[in-house]
Amino acid sequence: MTKMIKISVLIALFLLPVITLGAGGKEASFSPYVDDRGNISLPRDFRTTWSHLGTWALTSKAAAGPHVMKASPGTGLHEVYTQPESAKAYKKTGKWPDGAVLIMEVRTIEWDDMATGHVMYAGETTESLMMVKDGKVRFKDNPNWGAGWGWAVFKTADPKKNLSKSYKSDCMGCHEPKKSTDWVHINGYPTLR
Amino acid sequence: MTKMIKISVLIALFLLPVITLGAGGKEASFSPYVDDRGNISLPRDFRTTWSHLGTWALTSKAAAGPHVMKASPGTGLHEVYTQPESAKAYKKTGKWPDGAVLIMEVRTIEWDDMATGHVMYAGETTESLMMVKDGKVRFKDNPNWGAGWGWAVFKTADPKKNLSKSYKSDCMGCHEPKKSTDWVHINGYPTLR
Repeated sequence: MTKMIKISVLIALFLLPVITLGAGGKEASFSPYVDDRGNISLPRDFRTTWSHLGTWALTSKAAAGPHVMKASPGTGLHEVYTQPESAKAYKKTGKWPDGAVLIMEVRTIEWDDMATGHVMYAGETTESLMMVKDGKVRFKDNPNWGAGWGWAVFKTADPKKNLSKSYKSDCMGCHEPKKSTDWVHINGYPTLR
Repeated sequence: MTKMIKISVLIALFLLPVITLGAGGKEASFSPYVDDRGNISLPRDFRTTWSHLGTWALTSKAAAGPHVMKASPGTGLHEVYTQPESAKAYKKTGKWPDGAVLIMEVRTIEWDDMATGHVMYAGETTESLMMVKDGKVRFKDNPNWGAGWGWAVFKTADPKKNLSKSYKSDCMGCHEPKKSTDWVHINGYPTLR
């Protein structure tokens, strides 16, 4: 019986990658956050398990006032996340793999006077902006897909309703200057250095 | 042969938890970041795989000038991380499990004028502050252990040299006001809400 178990473990260890790949087959079908018409939905519970890439602190009147982006995030602490495997791939290759997701959570700014003076920290999340890497030009007729990505804006209350009508009018206002880095503000992400 | 493989897989699936627990046995010996005298060292590569808890933006003169903390972090974007399992445990119980690690990276502030106005983002990490939860009062004679935690301050150049001489003089200046939340500035961590 002991020998039987040993052999079983050996065979199982050999088979495990095969089993795992098999189970992961569904995931490989592009993205769990995109349906067959290119509609994008916001992942749940990414905060705890995804890689945090960096933070943007927007405090100026320009952010609070009229926005370039119609569905603008505005003033706040903007926290950016990606899947751990996408961060790993980017660090290795300098490119985002197909299906890579970038999420920017826009959080209100709270403040306090502490031993270190006036400090800002995050309140509630009001909006989430999302990009999904598409290396194959999958949704040519969908105005929220282009420039190698799918683009989305969600209010916290409805993580399934993409408020962006067109990535060109609603997203490129801020992303246009970053064409050379695949439209991503890569300079703000210490995790990828 | 096919039947043999099937049986093997079944046995292996039954055995897997046992094997996994066995391999994880070492981890259970308190903390991989603390030696037997209570010396604390900074984990590597936590940015990609640990949970990001929140960000503090310190921009005031009080942070840049003389500090309450002798090895003060000062002005910067302070990014806080913990192990995913510690975040999960805290969310469930409202308490930090034994061995939980909190790391606060202090990053220089860079800025840019963008479509959204003046924005701040992170440059390089200059210092890292760390806490290790100790539920058993393990190092009574070590001045960097007390109040239920081990305490450490590292310059980026030397992640093994704890610059804190005593948690009371070097850490409590900022943490004292947070006694009711186990000395942690929990209000700044949306991930735990």
